[in-house]
Amino acid sequence: MVHAPARPPAGAPPVRINLYSDTQTRPSPAMKEAMMRAEVGDEQHGDDPTVHALCDRMAALMGKEAAIYLPSGTMCNVIAILTHCGKGDEVVAHETSHILHSEGGTHAALTGVQIYPLKGARGQFTADDVRAAIRPKTRYAPPQRLLEVEQTANIGGGTIWPLAQLNAVADVAHGEGWSTHMDGARLMNACVAAGIAPREMVAQYDSVWLDFTKGLGAPLGAVLCGSAEFIGQAWRWKQRLGGSMRQAGICAAACLYALDHNVDRLAEDHANAKALARGLRQIEGIVVEEPDTNLVFFDVRDTGLTVEALQARLALQGIAVSGLGGRVRACTHLDVTAPMIEEAVAAIRAAVSR
Amino acid sequence: MVHAPARPPAGAPPVRINLYSDTQTRPSPAMKEAMMRAEVGDEQHGDDPTVHALCDRMAALMGKEAAIYLPSGTMCNVIAILTHCGKGDEVVAHETSHILHSEGGTHAALTGVQIYPLKGARGQFTADDVRAAIRPKTRYAPPQRLLEVEQTANIGGGTIWPLAQLNAVADVAHGEGWSTHMDGARLMNACVAAGIAPREMVAQYDSVWLDFTKGLGAPLGAVLCGSAEFIGQAWRWKQRLGGSMRQAGICAAACLYALDHNVDRLAEDHANAKALARGLRQIEGIVVEEPDTNLVFFDVRDTGLTVEALQARLALQGIAVSGLGGRVRACTHLDVTAPMIEEAVAAIRAAVSR
Amino acid sequence: MVHAPARPPAGAPPVRINLYSDTQTRPSPAMKEAMMRAEVGDEQHGDDPTVHALCDRMAALMGKEAAIYLPSGTMCNVIAILTHCGKGDEVVAHETSHILHSEGGTHAALTGVQIYPLKGARGQFTADDVRAAIRPKTRYAPPQRLLEVEQTANIGGGTIWPLAQLNAVADVAHGEGWSTHMDGARLMNACVAAGIAPREMVAQYDSVWLDFTKGLGAPLGAVLCGSAEFIGQAWRWKQRLGGSMRQAGICAAACLYALDHNVDRLAEDHANAKALARGLRQIEGIVVEEPDTNLVFFDVRDTGLTVEALQARLALQGIAVSGLGGRVRACTHLDVTAPMIEEAVAAIRAAVSR
Amino acid sequence: MVHAPARPPAGAPPVRINLYSDTQTRPSPAMKEAMMRAEVGDEQHGDDPTVHALCDRMAALMGKEAAIYLPSGTMCNVIAILTHCGKGDEVVAHETSHILHSEGGTHAALTGVQIYPLKGARGQFTADDVRAAIRPKTRYAPPQRLLEVEQTANIGGGTIWPLAQLNAVADVAHGEGWSTHMDGARLMNACVAAGIAPREMVAQYDSVWLDFTKGLGAPLGAVLCGSAEFIGQAWRWKQRLGGSMRQAGICAAACLYALDHNVDRLAEDHANAKALARGLRQIEGIVVEEPDTNLVFFDVRDTGLTVEALQARLALQGIAVSGLGGRVRACTHLDVTAPMIEEAVAAIRAAVSR
Repeated sequence: MVHAPARPPAGAPPVRINLYSDTQTRPSPAMKEAMMRAEVGDEQHGDDPTVHALCDRMAALMGKEAAIYLPSGTMCNVIAILTHCGKGDEVVAHETSHILHSEGGTHAALTGVQIYPLKGARGQFTADDVRAAIRPKTRYAPPQRLLEVEQTANIGGGTIWPLAQLNAVADVAHGEGWSTHMDGARLMNACVAAGIAPREMVAQYDSVWLDFTKGLGAPLGAVLCGSAEFIGQAWRWKQRLGGSMRQAGICAAACLYALDHNVDRLAEDHANAKALARGLRQIEGIVVEEPDTNLVFFDVRDTGLTVEALQARLALQGIAVSGLGGRVRACTHLDVTAPMIEEAVAAIRAAVSR
Repeated sequence: MVHAPARPPAGAPPVRINLYSDTQTRPSPAMKEAMMRAEVGDEQHGDDPTVHALCDRMAALMGKEAAIYLPSGTMCNVIAILTHCGKGDEVVAHETSHILHSEGGTHAALTGVQIYPLKGARGQFTADDVRAAIRPKTRYAPPQRLLEVEQTANIGGGTIWPLAQLNAVADVAHGEGWSTHMDGARLMNACVAAGIAPREMVAQYDSVWLDFTKGLGAPLGAVLCGSAEFIGQAWRWKQRLGGSMRQAGICAAACLYALDHNVDRLAEDHANAKALARGLRQIEGIVVEEPDTNLVFFDVRDTGLTVEALQARLALQGIAVSGLGGRVRACTHLDVTAPMIEEAVAAIRAAVSR
Repeated sequence: MVHAPARPPAGAPPVRINLYSDTQTRPSPAMKEAMMRAEVGDEQHGDDPTVHALCDRMAALMGKEAAIYLPSGTMCNVIAILTHCGKGDEVVAHETSHILHSEGGTHAALTGVQIYPLKGARGQFTADDVRAAIRPKTRYAPPQRLLEVEQTANIGGGTIWPLAQLNAVADVAHGEGWSTHMDGARLMNACVAAGIAPREMVAQYDSVWLDFTKGLGAPLGAVLCGSAEFIGQAWRWKQRLGGSMRQAGICAAACLYALDHNVDRLAEDHANAKALARGLRQIEGIVVEEPDTNLVFFDVRDTGLTVEALQARLALQGIAVSGLGGRVRACTHLDVTAPMIEEAVAAIRAAVSR
Repeated sequence: MVHAPARPPAGAPPVRINLYSDTQTRPSPAMKEAMMRAEVGDEQHGDDPTVHALCDRMAALMGKEAAIYLPSGTMCNVIAILTHCGKGDEVVAHETSHILHSEGGTHAALTGVQIYPLKGARGQFTADDVRAAIRPKTRYAPPQRLLEVEQTANIGGGTIWPLAQLNAVADVAHGEGWSTHMDGARLMNACVAAGIAPREMVAQYDSVWLDFTKGLGAPLGAVLCGSAEFIGQAWRWKQRLGGSMRQAGICAAACLYALDHNVDRLAEDHANAKALARGLRQIEGIVVEEPDTNLVFFDVRDTGLTVEALQARLALQGIAVSGLGGRVRACTHLDVTAPMIEEAVAAIRAAVSR
């Protein structure tokens, strides 16, 4: 259920149409301009004004008291769990979650928590699923402390959790005295597609983070938000993990630029994803999941091709896609245009019909 | 899926028929005699002759190079995993396994491993299930290092893994370069019931432990077996966990006694379990799983009673049973006789028909 | 600074005079009688009446709310630190402390704390030493949470912390919001020698444990005392470490026997230690530290012998001593009599004058 | 012994002369130009050409097989120790080392190692000191696995380890089967001042890292070098810690620029440091340590001022210095000029004579 690295075959041309991941966007000239103009200071000492501006803006956007800038989304998850939980505690999360499959076992290795995997279609679970996972309060069972959700649910298909469902599962968690944490790697995709403001979407989550290196197009960084006390403790873990930086305002400036210029345009990525799904659905043997956002998952087994074989054929056309859990994943983002989508559909049609 | 503690209701008489767990057997006078006669020394310094005798005998019985005496079965699992794995590694085990549900989250808290939960009926999985769980070798996925099985599978119903299946799943693991570990808390029940010698049963397992405090009736201790190098490293963890003791030969003598006197008689417990299952099956509304060994699981939901309500009613008759995963568990052992089984069936019949 | 294992040379007779360690005492016939008579139950489920009796008695003796029975003193330290501290916290302790040198690095490996080593003569430090070790409250410094002392200080020479000094260092700790923990492996030696009741001696310590396998002569076990809340949390760690046992009352009965019969007699061990020191002081080239309790440390470098050479020569006479930090340690206990001390002095005199 | 944060008093003007730390240098316009021109890719997937160029160059410079780019020097230390050591191992390092005092207890919290603190003047120790710290190979002592040195030794006074001494301590370590690691936060200062090539300076060190955010003036990043196998394992920890980034080539470009333009000029910082020391030595009551590199430590106790009081007075003049271990530390770097040094001396003279 994890990323298969997509190494192009020997002789493949450079990638022209990059549907591999929205993590591979390049900073635009205008974003780089903003970076150069940034006022900076020693971020580790709390002296970088651009980092402060980014954190203040994110806290306001998410409706939380405070925020902290970190080098990656994975570090946001690691620090959030270290701050919410003690060693030996248990986190309840979906069985396809990023923290279980794509963070190298860090939560056992470093945070000392066990993850209770909930089942459920499309990367989501219900309040009843959470209630069924509540353990008796005995010495034998690990203490449960945290509920985690991914908005959007990546392996689930880039799906959007409905707000009511987000709130319902959080209610169960809070009723048990657990905290709630949202992995918002692609949260803005959900907010734009659903037309719901971030602060409303995350209102029932004690901590939430947003990644700036996916659809938002910044080169580096994610911001974790929560209560002032939570962020104060998160700072201690940032120091311990080596996530404290120096003149990081240069990178934070790209995130501020992204908030100004790259949020609303996520709607284009979603339109492109829907167009891709429509096109693929016309191809015999391909089973396509309807995309909620910018991730299009499809199954090519009925074409007789494996995921890897399709990847290799497309690579020869300069097209990159990824494989996740036995399916192909194509990801739209700001470096992917509508004509590229058309070309990709044609190339996939050709690849499966050889 | 974990033990619900069975606190008797106020006013309940002392327990006369203890089907709660085979952990609650009391050492017999003859066993205590053997304890008193034991020659002892400083076990932590490797100077206790009775502990040496027990370890030598267990290594021979299991066909391994060496063995180590520990205060509990949980410590055997903790030390085996600490020795086989490094932090951030992953252990593949059944989703109902003791290490996931009944050791307080210790493997996240202390050993630093993640447990990959396999599905499968009766607490068992197949070689195909293991193959399907093999992760790609990327930086995103935790490295997989160990396959773990429980023989018998407790929450699975006290079921016996067939030897061929044990060997088949171990083959897949070894083919991947993983080690294999058997939680043999009730291994002798499986060996006696299946008529297979322990060393044959565990031949494909790099480490295995046996608990002496369950059907074998000793007051304290379990023995972990493996290669000489493995046991050498296990000793280091025994010291770090505080599992090194002093004149522990007194307790080890009870284990030696149990090997001499309490193994073959497990067949009686199995006969009593089958008798209990037969009796319960006559009671309307009770759904009984056919016992392989000394654990009888049954479902009382169709009687309109909850597990807790049944426990409370039986407690008033001096009868104890446990609840596990929504089912009732009744456990036979050397303090439970055939007439007690008859009485228990009658009491349960009365309890559900009130 | 750690125990050098004392393996006797080939051809050495059995040990007759065991000054190696008070951990090597054997349970007496009367103690074993008490063990056999013990009423037992499932200790892990909280059902062993003899374990309860021991814990109740220890809590009263130490003036604490509650107590927990554990397989070893090392586990008492591990659990106390896991309960007082979170990962990344710092414990302030003497640079010769057992937790730093004799527990296999467990506090880094398992409890996740750093130990700040204080200097000071005879294994002790002062309130000023503690004050000088207080770190600024920044993100760079580990948070300090616990002060630990050893009473008596083993490597320090079996020395007794004066009550006023114990209280003074605890006051500094509490003033900083730290907890205080006493490693009381040989606490009763200090109490008997100083004529101070245990509850007075440990009044300023939030947790304290006593080892029953040293001068008290029991085969196995130590008891950790503290507040009810502290012991409740300690139980969770006991389960996770695999320190929960079954019919442990058999062993607890030996501890109760020791409290009744083996405490006051520690004064004999102290007298024997003083006699040994007097005798050794007559031997040219041996520098003896005046013993406070039952440990006699002496330096043989001026005799031209190494510690190991002396150990080997004494082993040929059936006499065992240990080496600690470049010195010889001789330990008196209930298996060592006054005539044995005379014989040991004579043997050491002969060994160094060859 | 740790950084006291230097918050300026209310009403203090902006800092004009920043002797607080070389971490506070701002990227120059030319460095920013280089950043903007950088070719970038997805660093986490191994696709960023500028990060590759930096790592290749650093590996060559240090004479190692491979290198890895990380967000901070602290993360270099954390990952190096996680890669060299297993949990419960021990690292031998100076008692003033950064890993003990300035990384928030991360090595206990996350890497699971204990640090054995060696004494020695000026942040350095000798081969004899290392030999004296070798523990017996018993179960009681933590296994020793790694020797760590800081070049230059920060709290030691920014001192330069002589090459022969570096090699001598490494020889002892390797003779014991330990690995060797160099915290080279300010390694280039040592190389420039001593006139020794980096690859010669670090030849006996299995791993070494260089910080680009100190005297080299880049905004973010450090590079850890070692064998190909070591760096392969380090990548796994980088992923787990959340140190994997995306278009990090923008930041790596600043490091490449620094290697081209900011290394030789460190000689100016050293000259300024010597000038500062000369100036301060003329002031009555100030005791100055002769600087080896760019750190000037001085003691102001005889002036009747505390470190904090001096900091406050200088802050009112727009001058920042830091306090470390009861001393004042003034740090020269590329934003500090010779006239600023003169002004700083005058201001300090005025401050202490009020």
